[in-house]
Amino acid sequence: MSSTLSEQLQHLGLDKLRSGGRQADQMRPIRITRQFTKHAEGSVLVEFGDTKVICTATVDRGVPRFLRGSGSGWVTAEYGMLPRSTHTRNDREATKGKQGGRTIEIQRLIGRSLRQALDLKKLGENTITIDCDVIQADGGTRTAAITGACVALVDAVNVLRQDKNGAVKGNPLKQMIAAVSVGMHKGQAILDLDYSEDSNAETDMNVIMNDKGGFIEVQGTAEAAPYTQDELNQMLALAQKGISEIITAQKAALEG
Amino acid sequence: MSSTLSEQLQHLGLDKLRSGGRQADQMRPIRITRQFTKHAEGSVLVEFGDTKVICTATVDRGVPRFLRGSGSGWVTAEYGMLPRSTHTRNDREATKGKQGGRTIEIQRLIGRSLRQALDLKKLGENTITIDCDVIQADGGTRTAAITGACVALVDAVNVLRQDKNGAVKGNPLKQMIAAVSVGMHKGQAILDLDYSEDSNAETDMNVIMNDKGGFIEVQGTAEAAPYTQDELNQMLALAQKGISEIITAQKAALEG
Amino acid sequence: MSSTLSEQLQHLGLDKLRSGGRQADQMRPIRITRQFTKHAEGSVLVEFGDTKVICTATVDRGVPRFLRGSGSGWVTAEYGMLPRSTHTRNDREATKGKQGGRTIEIQRLIGRSLRQALDLKKLGENTITIDCDVIQADGGTRTAAITGACVALVDAVNVLRQDKNGAVKGNPLKQMIAAVSVGMHKGQAILDLDYSEDSNAETDMNVIMNDKGGFIEVQGTAEAAPYTQDELNQMLALAQKGISEIITAQKAALEG
Amino acid sequence: MSSTLSEQLQHLGLDKLRSGGRQADQMRPIRITRQFTKHAEGSVLVEFGDTKVICTATVDRGVPRFLRGSGSGWVTAEYGMLPRSTHTRNDREATKGKQGGRTIEIQRLIGRSLRQALDLKKLGENTITIDCDVIQADGGTRTAAITGACVALVDAVNVLRQDKNGAVKGNPLKQMIAAVSVGMHKGQAILDLDYSEDSNAETDMNVIMNDKGGFIEVQGTAEAAPYTQDELNQMLALAQKGISEIITAQKAALEG
Amino acid sequence: MSSTLSEQLQHLGLDKLRSGGRQADQMRPIRITRQFTKHAEGSVLVEFGDTKVICTATVDRGVPRFLRGSGSGWVTAEYGMLPRSTHTRNDREATKGKQGGRTIEIQRLIGRSLRQALDLKKLGENTITIDCDVIQADGGTRTAAITGACVALVDAVNVLRQDKNGAVKGNPLKQMIAAVSVGMHKGQAILDLDYSEDSNAETDMNVIMNDKGGFIEVQGTAEAAPYTQDELNQMLALAQKGISEIITAQKAALEG
Amino acid sequence: MSSTLSEQLQHLGLDKLRSGGRQADQMRPIRITRQFTKHAEGSVLVEFGDTKVICTATVDRGVPRFLRGSGSGWVTAEYGMLPRSTHTRNDREATKGKQGGRTIEIQRLIGRSLRQALDLKKLGENTITIDCDVIQADGGTRTAAITGACVALVDAVNVLRQDKNGAVKGNPLKQMIAAVSVGMHKGQAILDLDYSEDSNAETDMNVIMNDKGGFIEVQGTAEAAPYTQDELNQMLALAQKGISEIITAQKAALEG
Repeated sequence: MSSTLSEQLQHLGLDKLRSGGRQADQMRPIRITRQFTKHAEGSVLVEFGDTKVICTATVDRGVPRFLRGSGSGWVTAEYGMLPRSTHTRNDREATKGKQGGRTIEIQRLIGRSLRQALDLKKLGENTITIDCDVIQADGGTRTAAITGACVALVDAVNVLRQDKNGAVKGNPLKQMIAAVSVGMHKGQAILDLDYSEDSNAETDMNVIMNDKGGFIEVQGTAEAAPYTQDELNQMLALAQKGISEIITAQKAALEG
Repeated sequence: MSSTLSEQLQHLGLDKLRSGGRQADQMRPIRITRQFTKHAEGSVLVEFGDTKVICTATVDRGVPRFLRGSGSGWVTAEYGMLPRSTHTRNDREATKGKQGGRTIEIQRLIGRSLRQALDLKKLGENTITIDCDVIQADGGTRTAAITGACVALVDAVNVLRQDKNGAVKGNPLKQMIAAVSVGMHKGQAILDLDYSEDSNAETDMNVIMNDKGGFIEVQGTAEAAPYTQDELNQMLALAQKGISEIITAQKAALEG
Repeated sequence: MSSTLSEQLQHLGLDKLRSGGRQADQMRPIRITRQFTKHAEGSVLVEFGDTKVICTATVDRGVPRFLRGSGSGWVTAEYGMLPRSTHTRNDREATKGKQGGRTIEIQRLIGRSLRQALDLKKLGENTITIDCDVIQADGGTRTAAITGACVALVDAVNVLRQDKNGAVKGNPLKQMIAAVSVGMHKGQAILDLDYSEDSNAETDMNVIMNDKGGFIEVQGTAEAAPYTQDELNQMLALAQKGISEIITAQKAALEG
Repeated sequence: MSSTLSEQLQHLGLDKLRSGGRQADQMRPIRITRQFTKHAEGSVLVEFGDTKVICTATVDRGVPRFLRGSGSGWVTAEYGMLPRSTHTRNDREATKGKQGGRTIEIQRLIGRSLRQALDLKKLGENTITIDCDVIQADGGTRTAAITGACVALVDAVNVLRQDKNGAVKGNPLKQMIAAVSVGMHKGQAILDLDYSEDSNAETDMNVIMNDKGGFIEVQGTAEAAPYTQDELNQMLALAQKGISEIITAQKAALEG
Repeated sequence: MSSTLSEQLQHLGLDKLRSGGRQADQMRPIRITRQFTKHAEGSVLVEFGDTKVICTATVDRGVPRFLRGSGSGWVTAEYGMLPRSTHTRNDREATKGKQGGRTIEIQRLIGRSLRQALDLKKLGENTITIDCDVIQADGGTRTAAITGACVALVDAVNVLRQDKNGAVKGNPLKQMIAAVSVGMHKGQAILDLDYSEDSNAETDMNVIMNDKGGFIEVQGTAEAAPYTQDELNQMLALAQKGISEIITAQKAALEG
Repeated sequence: MSSTLSEQLQHLGLDKLRSGGRQADQMRPIRITRQFTKHAEGSVLVEFGDTKVICTATVDRGVPRFLRGSGSGWVTAEYGMLPRSTHTRNDREATKGKQGGRTIEIQRLIGRSLRQALDLKKLGENTITIDCDVIQADGGTRTAAITGACVALVDAVNVLRQDKNGAVKGNPLKQMIAAVSVGMHKGQAILDLDYSEDSNAETDMNVIMNDKGGFIEVQGTAEAAPYTQDELNQMLALAQKGISEIITAQKAALEG
């Protein structure tokens, strides 16, 4: 007649609750603060729960050598973490004399994804440099970074469009881009993993999509066990739900 | 009554033929040569068509600091291209003083994937270092590298198992790992892209799987346009076909 | 009968007002926010007007080699600027592969100054690493950094004192340390220069003092013209006034 | 009736004598040898006691990018120590792959100070590079270096003035620059510290002045205890005496 | 009447046999395979016994800055070893961030030697870059590399001569260059040392000659004991014999 | 009856005179100054004419990892040039972040040669580091460096032999080592080339020998034309004469 706590939770449907009481398909609170710093053409503080990233977009005239004379613009990205944004301090990459492999992998992903947001031909021969600097990390820094960077990118493009000498043709913005992590955790697909979930997931997947439901990049890595086509589909379904909410938040911030 | 060449090709089912006359779901010839060089515990020359990669596996006693005393082994990988393995010469990374971002991204992928091949606990406190050096490139160097490296890894594990002081417990090999690229090209999913196809694909996807059909890593990147769930599924189906053939070739080489 | 605007301002004593209406001896608003990020033992956001610096203090057991076995602790500091904390973007030092000369000069000054705050013998063989990362720059980043870092240091020392295994003996805090810039600008000594004043000053001086009015470091550099003993004294007098206000703000923050 | 040695020394006024019998306000012997090596436009061996520094000044046409087209010249400096110029060997910076923080701090100070010697507009678009290489160190290497470098700079400017194509307008030399260290040692202000004094000083101050008694740079660092305004004034008074003697030596060398 | 094995070998003239049964003046088998990879203008696999080196020659228009406008071309070389080309794995130089001293010494030797093969004036303002990558090492990698690189160089020059816009005047090839190692080993001069002989030789000498018997470079190093003029002459005589055979092999390959 | 200047010079035997009036087989004046700086165990200023090199020898307890426990000592060398030791300024290697190829080649030669001077077993587990720093260059810096370094090495070994805890067994000095350059210049073999001769020589050869006439290293490079066995012999004969004089100068300095 008496039941265990586990049985009671199951009865209440709370047995699947995650740390902080989240449901499997529930995002952490998203906050997007524009004009976070004053110098950059676009400056955004993006927060996915306790993960906080400053994303700035800088406009420079001119393009890298391989594009000169092409009439086309460029978007590139750099990523960094403040040394004590994490549980234990990481050595400062500027002191070590090089960026680590994880940093390079992430900043290449950010740049690749954000180039899909724009029609680079319409941008003219301008370069937009995205800086994503993590000031506090709690899982999902790269997906938060892409999400915030896209808002900063829109602000920077709009600054450039105001400039009569800016060489921009029409509106370079093709589509909003957003990103979210999903994973398999204790046999269940979950959305927007925090650090403790990410550390223990069987599979970790980052999904970048546009605002029309198209895939920009999918990266899914088996951490503890191979995953099946069915699990892949479950994770993608969660990602689609999350991306939809994130894009709503991006648009609200841009209208705010 | 007369028909165009295109109509004739369509009639013959040849309109979908790729360069070299391949069908959309057809792999390039695969060749796997073991004992390619004499010093390494595992040494494989792997060829996917004109893409040629030397994969060696080196056994060292001991593990990186973060594993010392854990009883667990480690697998790590490095990747390089000979400067003139490509159409135009790339600067030698040793001369530039650092590995490029693409190199780092690829070698992290190789290491991550091959660690899934082994039960690292059974490996004991040994490290296996995989070196993948491209001597001729024609698209798909990273998937060929993973494929060849897994064979070299098996050879190296077997050498280590012969060693009475090797601290190996049972057979560390959990599963064979193989990799292949797929993509969307002119609106059609194709398997095992060569360089010219890869340069023009709308979507480029690398799929790493085990010999039981489980996914180890999926990386799909929209190059020219976002892709749909349906296109994703088409590409994954081709990948599964290709991986099956590759694993057959790996097993034949290991038995040869 | 009619007088010029300049005469009217002179009559009202407003002719010496600085940008933002500051008097020559007036500090910008100071804000010190503790627990700014959640992982570090000490984490402070310090603001001198529009200059904003995140200062964290990280505690690690052990000391550099030259102190091992000495029973003495160590304090060291690193400084960085987010690439777009400034008017135009600076290249990321992690990408360039080394810290610039200005960065190195500043972080040596921060470390040297903060070591004076503590009795390193009482700290035991622990190392406290101070990270000062500028997220928005408007002059005086190094003096704001020292000021905020001292508060973060106190928090970190107190965390360490709670630790029974921390090897701290008594209270290592000897004295609070604060810093301010002064300068000669249009022939007048002024306090706490912002970026536009700093760029145009004849002399630029950074003064670091303790809470008892003693000098920790004085660095005064003629930018446009040599300075006299009398000007030096005027600047030091302003610095003493500013330091006194800053230390009041530090103490209020620590009690808050 | 019998008195201690200490009392006898005090009676004779010798109790304040420093190692080598120097008075508190006494410089070490200064030697300035011009044309020390044969290739450079200016080449000086400067000796402050046992501290020996080779200072060369090299003239190059053209200026760094930020000055091109400005009509203005530039002075920059580099500093180094031979590995065994010190008591124990320091690793060669060329082998370590970077200059240490102390080196960078010193060479920035030398460059900054020597730029004050010249009217850079009159120099035309020429760059003078100062190299200060310590061949034997016994304290005060940076002050000896600035002192010797100013003489080498004058020689190089004069070479350039002879050159009809040199673009120099009039005499770029505005003022001679010299430097000396002072400190608080056992409670007393002393001039021109040698290595053993420097290692034990409570306060260490480097003072750079021009030949009219104006301050170019003052850097005073509390090493063991904060210092007071009164101590600061004592140290500056000694520095003024020392600088006066050094400038006399510079002028004698230039006339020699 | 009975004799020892040593006496019997001496009687048969076999006491001087080396590992693998070679005579003191006998080369290892030489194999030169042209068109080894498909992209380079010249691509050669050269084998001296178990030593295998891929040599490619890449043609680029233009020359380094110091030759611009001179009408003269340039030849430069880089050398590398695959990490596991040797008995134990060497760290990858691209990962270490710099080339080792031995690598630099060897690639300078290769470049210097091959520049002697051409009349650089006739080459016009073109640069040929030689890459020598060792895939398997068993002694004599630098001499094999020079030998193979000269064949690749000839192929590349011929490609360039076909190019109407190539700016080549006549035939830039002045002379074939080949290299071989000789040494003193157990008191006897021997030709073309393998790894085990090289490790134990008293003297190690690399000789580079042209096809007319002229010396291009001689580098002879006493490893265990100084060598005499007589020993030097013995070694040079062996080298001349070896070079003659190598040049025959080069010419056969070029005609093949 | 009248004769040309050339004929008159020939008659007087002056037609072979070199710059400065030297004969083909004549060394420049050699000066070896011991105890040149005060901190090093061995410190020598060596001068071959206008070439001036400071050579110091530093003794450290312990050996590199590969020799630990072997009972054997080690000798290593580093080489550098002051930036303006040459006609035009060379960039400082510490600033460039790496040593150039020429530097590395030279310091490897110095270290290799000086290790031949000692019986490393008798040295015990001590390391002697040779620093050769060129303060003025006029050709032959590497041969002057080896010559001076050997004297500094002897001084350092003698310091170590005095040390009861030094672990030295008997006298580690096996032989004196000296070096000289020779070359073919205008068809004639000449000894000890200065910079202008070196720049124009057809062949450049560095010869390192011991005090018993044995060869330690011979490096002969054809610069403009291949050289013959006869020319090689002529150059070696001159080298032997020069080495003999240099060793006499070394011994005189050590006795002085």
